[in-house]
Amino acid sequence: MKKSLIALAVLGTCGAAMAQSSVSLYGMADVWVGRVKTDITGVGSASETVLESGGFNTSRLGFKGSEDLGGGLKANFNLEGALAMDNGTAGGLSFNRQSWVGLSGGFGEIQLGKPWTPYDDTRSMANDTFNANFASSWTTWLGYEDNPNNTIRYNSPNFGGFSGAFAYSLGEDRASSPNNKASNLVSFSLNYANGPIVAGFAHQSQKVEGLNGIDSTGILTGLAATGKTTYNLLNGSYDFGVVKLVGGVNQAKVQPDGFADVKANEFNIGVDVPLGAGFDIGVGVARSKLESGGTDLSKTTGFSIGAKYALSKRTFTYAAFNRTKAEIIGTGAEVKNTLFGVGIQHNF
Amino acid sequence: MKKSLIALAVLGTCGAAMAQSSVSLYGMADVWVGRVKTDITGVGSASETVLESGGFNTSRLGFKGSEDLGGGLKANFNLEGALAMDNGTAGGLSFNRQSWVGLSGGFGEIQLGKPWTPYDDTRSMANDTFNANFASSWTTWLGYEDNPNNTIRYNSPNFGGFSGAFAYSLGEDRASSPNNKASNLVSFSLNYANGPIVAGFAHQSQKVEGLNGIDSTGILTGLAATGKTTYNLLNGSYDFGVVKLVGGVNQAKVQPDGFADVKANEFNIGVDVPLGAGFDIGVGVARSKLESGGTDLSKTTGFSIGAKYALSKRTFTYAAFNRTKAEIIGTGAEVKNTLFGVGIQHNF
Amino acid sequence: MKKSLIALAVLGTCGAAMAQSSVSLYGMADVWVGRVKTDITGVGSASETVLESGGFNTSRLGFKGSEDLGGGLKANFNLEGALAMDNGTAGGLSFNRQSWVGLSGGFGEIQLGKPWTPYDDTRSMANDTFNANFASSWTTWLGYEDNPNNTIRYNSPNFGGFSGAFAYSLGEDRASSPNNKASNLVSFSLNYANGPIVAGFAHQSQKVEGLNGIDSTGILTGLAATGKTTYNLLNGSYDFGVVKLVGGVNQAKVQPDGFADVKANEFNIGVDVPLGAGFDIGVGVARSKLESGGTDLSKTTGFSIGAKYALSKRTFTYAAFNRTKAEIIGTGAEVKNTLFGVGIQHNF
Repeated sequence: MKKSLIALAVLGTCGAAMAQSSVSLYGMADVWVGRVKTDITGVGSASETVLESGGFNTSRLGFKGSEDLGGGLKANFNLEGALAMDNGTAGGLSFNRQSWVGLSGGFGEIQLGKPWTPYDDTRSMANDTFNANFASSWTTWLGYEDNPNNTIRYNSPNFGGFSGAFAYSLGEDRASSPNNKASNLVSFSLNYANGPIVAGFAHQSQKVEGLNGIDSTGILTGLAATGKTTYNLLNGSYDFGVVKLVGGVNQAKVQPDGFADVKANEFNIGVDVPLGAGFDIGVGVARSKLESGGTDLSKTTGFSIGAKYALSKRTFTYAAFNRTKAEIIGTGAEVKNTLFGVGIQHNF
Repeated sequence: MKKSLIALAVLGTCGAAMAQSSVSLYGMADVWVGRVKTDITGVGSASETVLESGGFNTSRLGFKGSEDLGGGLKANFNLEGALAMDNGTAGGLSFNRQSWVGLSGGFGEIQLGKPWTPYDDTRSMANDTFNANFASSWTTWLGYEDNPNNTIRYNSPNFGGFSGAFAYSLGEDRASSPNNKASNLVSFSLNYANGPIVAGFAHQSQKVEGLNGIDSTGILTGLAATGKTTYNLLNGSYDFGVVKLVGGVNQAKVQPDGFADVKANEFNIGVDVPLGAGFDIGVGVARSKLESGGTDLSKTTGFSIGAKYALSKRTFTYAAFNRTKAEIIGTGAEVKNTLFGVGIQHNF
Repeated sequence: MKKSLIALAVLGTCGAAMAQSSVSLYGMADVWVGRVKTDITGVGSASETVLESGGFNTSRLGFKGSEDLGGGLKANFNLEGALAMDNGTAGGLSFNRQSWVGLSGGFGEIQLGKPWTPYDDTRSMANDTFNANFASSWTTWLGYEDNPNNTIRYNSPNFGGFSGAFAYSLGEDRASSPNNKASNLVSFSLNYANGPIVAGFAHQSQKVEGLNGIDSTGILTGLAATGKTTYNLLNGSYDFGVVKLVGGVNQAKVQPDGFADVKANEFNIGVDVPLGAGFDIGVGVARSKLESGGTDLSKTTGFSIGAKYALSKRTFTYAAFNRTKAEIIGTGAEVKNTLFGVGIQHNF
């Protein structure tokens, strides 16, 4: 995310006295127009023309700042909320994307609040079709938490391309009996980025112990009050210059107490092609298979293609096509979703 | 709306390097103290002393920016939310007034998101009593939408004083059957502004086709699930220097499917008098008559007088008086509302 | 509250042209990690590890500005909302802390909107344990309003250390009968601050007259629809240099119509010790006794100790311990709350 020019101006143009500190207002405005279609076996299909926010990336508004405390130590904060540019709602300007304060220095960085998980960062750092919201990606998330509340996160320094991160989130839902445990979330990553190579491994474990689950809308709700969901991801990309190859494999596993496990095996692969003159094309395919107790439950396939044309470093237009097909195995039932849109993204 | 001085400082004082881009925080704080009275035939009257937000104009907080893309092309965005200064609520800092991103250049301007409609702009450009919130104006709006969601708006360049605008809003409420249509809103205007003359014609058509109406709180809800409401407006002002004359005529027509049409014929007229030394007085009268199937339903008359005293270019104090009387024809029933207040408005 | 460096930079570094006006974005990010424990007689105890926002002071985000109108007169505004840094919610970015516009000059200052009450300012200006949120303080607030809606506030100029303030808040809940009155709140203070001495007297009276009380969650709700609550406070501190002594006495009295009065007599006392090198320790004890009709109802004792270590003028870390014990007199029933935490606060 780029800092707004307000802060850059203050820092860069108005003199050295201001170099010690900055507060910046920044954001992203992304709107697209397109057509979405849903096709369900035995039900029929429906399509609609829409104007939506965040076709490429989620629109957002944020405030962030950094204060130089001397000796390389810094105090940092970030507040970032999602925007729906098509109707003006702003997550209630709750800062539902990021909200944290912390310290950074030679030791790395500590963040306290509601940061993204290390798993989520590794998930985003290499993804097909520009990691856009319309990327094919894996589609089975099983109650995944990308930015849990009440989190302590540590980011290591960069050691010759290697870096790691660890986060622990408190569920704060412990019931009154002294024997009860609170829910928690553990997430960590080990990444490598050097020259043309980006690669990473990440793990996330979401434990629902209390009576109030971390994610009350998650899949666990319908099955059991408690349990555990884990994610293991290997992700990376290699930039050949004329083309960039991206791909990843992920396993998600839900272990509800007293019920059979549900497991999703997933992969995605993609190619980004820079055509010059600010023009890029990205293509991706993803596949996810859900099984439980050795029985296949469903199979989801996604395909996406996107093109973007840069109007400046901060502004581009794009066109996107995405299609996903989910088959319920053994029934022949299918749900097909199609999306086509053109949009504009402006970063400030 | 004025840009905040933050951005102006960056642009104007801190050097040419920053001339390419700006993000500004801006707003308006408007609070008044006064007395409101309601008098209903056969029920009696009640009055109360109040301290309210937005007596003259709706208080607001916004962010906007523009990036020069070269060759006259610009990327623009705007996020603006209403504020209630008297209790601190902020439309949930949803940006419920404006929220859009777009491009502008020699061709005019495109806005995608939630802009004001062209009709609404023409409605606001010439109005009695400074177009303040206490202006007499027409009072029968019949489910009027001033800034619909999911909108594409085009503003033409200015041709010797003439300019036009067109907007199309997607209802996005199409039900699943392939035969159903989605709601939509069309709004356009043709305006002329040159020297002392401001004049414009504007049309708006709100079609409710889906099962979820564009405006679920509108008058259509009680009558039928679907239908159409249209507005046709002729509006203008002439500035004689010692006095400015403003006036307009409007017709609003509701056509609910399966019910009789309801039609409102409305006009307003007003005079603004600059008294010098920052002191201005504005007076306005408005009349609206509602009929259906040739039968008059109700008649509403509004009168307003306001005075403002400028403390600076961005700050003024004001006093306002407004009275409206609505008669239900044939019953003798009347509702009278009276308001008196003094306030201050500060723009930042 | 400090203005953000954005505005300071504009004013201080970018030249005299900008000295006339400023809009600043500012805030505070305060997060802590700790353990809370509740112990109730006959029920047992429960404790939990938490990561929370606002251990020392409530996290916040605000916008404020001032415009020089000439002749010493200024137009001012302030919008400030509370933040929960641990989950990103932001009071719905309603500006639920402060929201006002006004004028200031030689005559003092007028604020219209939702400012803090004069009583609340006197309450905060001298308090044990750094006036932190974990300070022992008095704990019986009986429906206290610290920043009521619909308020007119006047602040006097400073006369050789003496200053006063007065506020009147409109309930705006008058029922339709002409005989009914609206609720209101009156608050005023007289303070003295000179050299080592800070002292003040403040009074607040909350009258609930309408059918909708000012504070629908207050204690009055359960007792009667109408009544009055008053607060009288004497508060101060003396800085001996090596140590600062703080203390205060307060009387809160609830007078519900048709029910017996309930009265709370309270005091608190504390000591702040600067240990040098940016390290400070503060200790406080508070006691509150609730009685009605000559019968003691309950007794609450609070103890707090806090330490802070300054990383810069705007950033510090802290550790806090707080314990409160409430006894219901005559029953032997007790509720004990214990809190321990370490945190960081960053001001921007």
